[in-house]
Amino acid sequence: MAASTSPETKLSSGLPGLDTMLDGGFNKGRVILILGEPGTGKTIICSQYLYRGAAELGEISMFIGMNEPKSRFTREMLNLGMDFAKLEADGKFKYVDATEVRKIPDTAKVGRIAVGGRELGLVNLLDTIQSSIAKFDPARIALDSMSDLVFRFPSVEERRPVVLDMIETLQSTSATSLLTSELLSTGEERMLQPEEYLAEGVLLMRTLRKGVRTIQILKMRGSKVDTHPRPYVITGKGLEVLATEEVY
Amino acid sequence: MAASTSPETKLSSGLPGLDTMLDGGFNKGRVILILGEPGTGKTIICSQYLYRGAAELGEISMFIGMNEPKSRFTREMLNLGMDFAKLEADGKFKYVDATEVRKIPDTAKVGRIAVGGRELGLVNLLDTIQSSIAKFDPARIALDSMSDLVFRFPSVEERRPVVLDMIETLQSTSATSLLTSELLSTGEERMLQPEEYLAEGVLLMRTLRKGVRTIQILKMRGSKVDTHPRPYVITGKGLEVLATEEVY
Amino acid sequence: MAASTSPETKLSSGLPGLDTMLDGGFNKGRVILILGEPGTGKTIICSQYLYRGAAELGEISMFIGMNEPKSRFTREMLNLGMDFAKLEADGKFKYVDATEVRKIPDTAKVGRIAVGGRELGLVNLLDTIQSSIAKFDPARIALDSMSDLVFRFPSVEERRPVVLDMIETLQSTSATSLLTSELLSTGEERMLQPEEYLAEGVLLMRTLRKGVRTIQILKMRGSKVDTHPRPYVITGKGLEVLATEEVY
Amino acid sequence: MAASTSPETKLSSGLPGLDTMLDGGFNKGRVILILGEPGTGKTIICSQYLYRGAAELGEISMFIGMNEPKSRFTREMLNLGMDFAKLEADGKFKYVDATEVRKIPDTAKVGRIAVGGRELGLVNLLDTIQSSIAKFDPARIALDSMSDLVFRFPSVEERRPVVLDMIETLQSTSATSLLTSELLSTGEERMLQPEEYLAEGVLLMRTLRKGVRTIQILKMRGSKVDTHPRPYVITGKGLEVLATEEVY
Amino acid sequence: MAASTSPETKLSSGLPGLDTMLDGGFNKGRVILILGEPGTGKTIICSQYLYRGAAELGEISMFIGMNEPKSRFTREMLNLGMDFAKLEADGKFKYVDATEVRKIPDTAKVGRIAVGGRELGLVNLLDTIQSSIAKFDPARIALDSMSDLVFRFPSVEERRPVVLDMIETLQSTSATSLLTSELLSTGEERMLQPEEYLAEGVLLMRTLRKGVRTIQILKMRGSKVDTHPRPYVITGKGLEVLATEEVY
Amino acid sequence: MAASTSPETKLSSGLPGLDTMLDGGFNKGRVILILGEPGTGKTIICSQYLYRGAAELGEISMFIGMNEPKSRFTREMLNLGMDFAKLEADGKFKYVDATEVRKIPDTAKVGRIAVGGRELGLVNLLDTIQSSIAKFDPARIALDSMSDLVFRFPSVEERRPVVLDMIETLQSTSATSLLTSELLSTGEERMLQPEEYLAEGVLLMRTLRKGVRTIQILKMRGSKVDTHPRPYVITGKGLEVLATEEVY
Repeated sequence: MAASTSPETKLSSGLPGLDTMLDGGFNKGRVILILGEPGTGKTIICSQYLYRGAAELGEISMFIGMNEPKSRFTREMLNLGMDFAKLEADGKFKYVDATEVRKIPDTAKVGRIAVGGRELGLVNLLDTIQSSIAKFDPARIALDSMSDLVFRFPSVEERRPVVLDMIETLQSTSATSLLTSELLSTGEERMLQPEEYLAEGVLLMRTLRKGVRTIQILKMRGSKVDTHPRPYVITGKGLEVLATEEVY
Repeated sequence: MAASTSPETKLSSGLPGLDTMLDGGFNKGRVILILGEPGTGKTIICSQYLYRGAAELGEISMFIGMNEPKSRFTREMLNLGMDFAKLEADGKFKYVDATEVRKIPDTAKVGRIAVGGRELGLVNLLDTIQSSIAKFDPARIALDSMSDLVFRFPSVEERRPVVLDMIETLQSTSATSLLTSELLSTGEERMLQPEEYLAEGVLLMRTLRKGVRTIQILKMRGSKVDTHPRPYVITGKGLEVLATEEVY
Repeated sequence: MAASTSPETKLSSGLPGLDTMLDGGFNKGRVILILGEPGTGKTIICSQYLYRGAAELGEISMFIGMNEPKSRFTREMLNLGMDFAKLEADGKFKYVDATEVRKIPDTAKVGRIAVGGRELGLVNLLDTIQSSIAKFDPARIALDSMSDLVFRFPSVEERRPVVLDMIETLQSTSATSLLTSELLSTGEERMLQPEEYLAEGVLLMRTLRKGVRTIQILKMRGSKVDTHPRPYVITGKGLEVLATEEVY
Repeated sequence: MAASTSPETKLSSGLPGLDTMLDGGFNKGRVILILGEPGTGKTIICSQYLYRGAAELGEISMFIGMNEPKSRFTREMLNLGMDFAKLEADGKFKYVDATEVRKIPDTAKVGRIAVGGRELGLVNLLDTIQSSIAKFDPARIALDSMSDLVFRFPSVEERRPVVLDMIETLQSTSATSLLTSELLSTGEERMLQPEEYLAEGVLLMRTLRKGVRTIQILKMRGSKVDTHPRPYVITGKGLEVLATEEVY
Repeated sequence: MAASTSPETKLSSGLPGLDTMLDGGFNKGRVILILGEPGTGKTIICSQYLYRGAAELGEISMFIGMNEPKSRFTREMLNLGMDFAKLEADGKFKYVDATEVRKIPDTAKVGRIAVGGRELGLVNLLDTIQSSIAKFDPARIALDSMSDLVFRFPSVEERRPVVLDMIETLQSTSATSLLTSELLSTGEERMLQPEEYLAEGVLLMRTLRKGVRTIQILKMRGSKVDTHPRPYVITGKGLEVLATEEVY
Repeated sequence: MAASTSPETKLSSGLPGLDTMLDGGFNKGRVILILGEPGTGKTIICSQYLYRGAAELGEISMFIGMNEPKSRFTREMLNLGMDFAKLEADGKFKYVDATEVRKIPDTAKVGRIAVGGRELGLVNLLDTIQSSIAKFDPARIALDSMSDLVFRFPSVEERRPVVLDMIETLQSTSATSLLTSELLSTGEERMLQPEEYLAEGVLLMRTLRKGVRTIQILKMRGSKVDTHPRPYVITGKGLEVLATEEVY
């Protein structure tokens, strides 16, 4: 076998422990899925990722918010010590409001053609993403959460193409993207979700029975990673991953 | 990373042990889900929360009752030492009767337009909530239980928008709100319910196999909390959470 | 918090061990669900409850039988030492035969309006209950078993309103009522049934893997109770609950 | 509580160990469900029960065979030492062939009325049972297996009335009846089947993971029984229950 | 009870260890189900059974192949040391190609009557079996695998009559038949499949978590058998059952 | 039994540890299923297999890519030290782009006949495979992943014939083929997927709870193999199987 080529460029996740697990950070240009139970900090991990880029590395960062308006997002993150309003004023951060996707009517009309409202919602979302990217050319993107749209497509054969469209839209840019999704069930035995196969990387965030939260890298193309679940805590400054501790 | 800003304002839950778990109380303005098995005291925890505000802190408190008339609620809680009739006479408490939501006809008419009865029930509930809030301007709200309406929307794609409408109605006020919901199954491995993702905080209340009841904070935006399940007992004065005991 | 008011009036269940678990007995005026696996003695516990009232305390007691005619019920219970025929002759006991609910045609006509037979069955049952209560004014009621009607409404959104109608009919009286229902599955992990949420108290009766039968109070509004599962045996005189023994 | 009345008359099951578990035998006039996994000997236990009556106690015994012709049944049981051909010649045994129930066309006509073939199958079976009972007046009946008809009614709301019709037909006689049914799944956690609730007694026959077969009395109205699962073996003379051995 | 009659005639299975488990072999004239997970050797066990008869005992043996053409079957088995081409030339073996059952069109016409293609497939298969049997009069038959047809009938109420038709066709001959079927799920807790109830014997072949393969006799009418799961290996000469070893 | 014939020709898998498990390699001409969870390296194992043939043994190798364009595949594998661009230039490797299968419209027209888009996708894929094979005559093929088409056929009765068509197309060549598929759920208890029965060999790749990845040979026709699950790691040079280590 030929000698290995130079490894891919890494972007720090903004979480030192997670960077350790990731062998340095997320691989440049990848679309990574953050799949988690409620309350595990999916939005916070996105914010730390964007903040790291915008505040410390001068990279343009974009948050596509599907479940909360900018004001709430900004306030929440300020509580964790991340001042996105200031970053936006500095031109380093852009909040794209995509919350209308939650309120789509059941049917709509595009010109004279009746279209299912949920399909229209998808088309609108993809348009919003593409035009925002064209305008701001971000290095880092977080889309939170695809479940706000995808829940309208409950069967696997409906859900999979929708997820694919979202991921390919993000892949078509030069940005490195995080994409959050909601886990459908708790426990060790679970149905796999199509986004886990379609994304290039998958982080799984769970709360174990005793209340310990864990993060596990299920998948990361182009990178050697630590595949063990690791505990983490949510502090006043965001998530802190304990990359050398075991949970079982 | 910048220094952390001042933490959010806390409202005492009325349960000392739970306040310990919550790092002081519920965060002001949040919508918190109380998700529990039958008999775990979802209504009692709501009442203790409202009583604490109305009787001890002089805050206007409102109970939106979807499964029992005021007379029964008042009697039940009096047995636990909470005299809501007196608080109502003092102008500190308001009981909003929303029990008609349980008896909705299958179809109805709004003007000349036929509407599914269950959708009308939702609209009526939201109107009731909004007009009551406009009238009484409560600091604390408890809605018990959203399941009395939501069970009519059994699939996830139907259920999620209904839950979202309720939560956003509560979020649009300045009150801090509790919202109860029924757990669909027992055990460690379970389907996650959409309200767990849509609410800003989630308390999970269960009865373990041996009969021990536990309360666990699954999610609490804007707050560092104890995520371990903790045992509690129901006494003649309501719930008592044993915040320093372990259950496994 | 104010001092606790006087506790609710208690009715002895007729089983000394269960009274211990219940902190004295069932609370007056409540509707209690007896949820159990096959062969766990749901009917016997109802009979002991009624017999205690009618034979020893002089309270009018009524059994609404949905799955067996009076003759069989009377014979079964006589074998366990409870002579309901004598109590009926003394005017202390009334057997209401509601077994026709099991044999409802699929559709029927009320006047000129076609009605689904199962809905008619529900209406007939509620009428039977109400007119019987009006006539006999019982202090104690047992309805055995709601599953004989409810199985025709298999989805949760159909089943829940039917259960609610039954429970509210029983709540509208001054009697204290037991209502039996069949558990849908064995084991620790199970779907919760809507009647568990709608009733004011729930007793769960199961047969463990090794053949030990257990009774557990899942819920009891207005009362401090023992929530641990306790073993019991069925003897020639009915159920005997071993209220101080553990099962795990 | 009054003194217990005299216990019900018992019929020996033909299996000494099972009689021990049953506190003497099956109660006269009852309809008992034999619910078992494949290969656990449901048919053999029926045969031993009938043989005991016909060959040793002079009781008329009837086998209603829904899945095999008389010739095969007779041959199988002769291998186990039970000569039903001789008993039939002696007028003590009657084999009722109801195997046509397995081959019902999807629709049929009764006079000019189109009837679903499966409903017709049920009607035919009940007619066959009733006319056979009228003709032979058996003391013991075994119907093997109701699943040969009931599988055509897969939903609970369809299945339950069919099972009820069969059980009531058997209850309307003075015979003591066994009724076999197939278990739908293996393991400790399983859906309960409606026949378990409708029959007056239930025996559960299973093969554990290690290959040990167990029999357990889940239910037996009118009788104190041993509810522990007990091991048994199938020998050249039928089932032998080891009533004093434990399996877990 | 009368003395036991002479036991049924036994046919060696071709696997010494399995013969030990079977108390000598398969009972003559029976239809035995081989139910197994992928890769457990269902086809090999059939071949060893046929080879034993044809090559060593001079019995006519017939393989009804539903998922591979004769050429592939012959080649596979030659690798395991069984030369079926030679046996066929000697008139001891017949390969019946029934692979067209996998390729049935969705609908077809029988004369002027439109028939669902899958029903036609069943009719064709039964015709093929019957005419082949009439022509060759085999002592041993293996049909591999009924799942190649039955998967088109996914619900139990559809699947059961189809399985019954196949089994009865095989029972109507004087041959002793093996019939393979695919297990639908792994693990201890599983849905039982109708063929397990309809066949006269059932062998269950599984791969345990650690990779050990086991064979277990779940059912065998007319025979005392070892019901414990036993380990086996697949060697260059086929399956070798370790009839005295335990697996748990 | 006759002496065993000469074993089948083996092709090295490109992974030394896996070759050990396989008793030398994959059997020539077989179609092997690679069934795995997300992130377990299904694509990498295919690449190592093709690279081994093309770069070291001079065998024509073909990759049929259903979920990524050639450019991305080439780049990913170059990172792991496999230069497929060079191999393609040397005429040893061919990338067949079948990604259009992911984007099939719901309906299409073949001439004047409306065809379901998903069926057309299948036909197109099979045509692409066949014409590519005719043109390049590969010794090694990898198709990655059949799930990109098959997810459109979610029920077993739809899915099975589609899988069969793919496998038979690959079997009709003289190549040795790998075919990847996505596992539908995690854990020990799972539904078996039809491709596990239809392929001639099955490798199962999973991530255990603690993060250890394992590979297990569930099935391999024509070969004695190690059936134990073995751990493996993904390094900068691809998968490394630890063929002598145990995982439980």
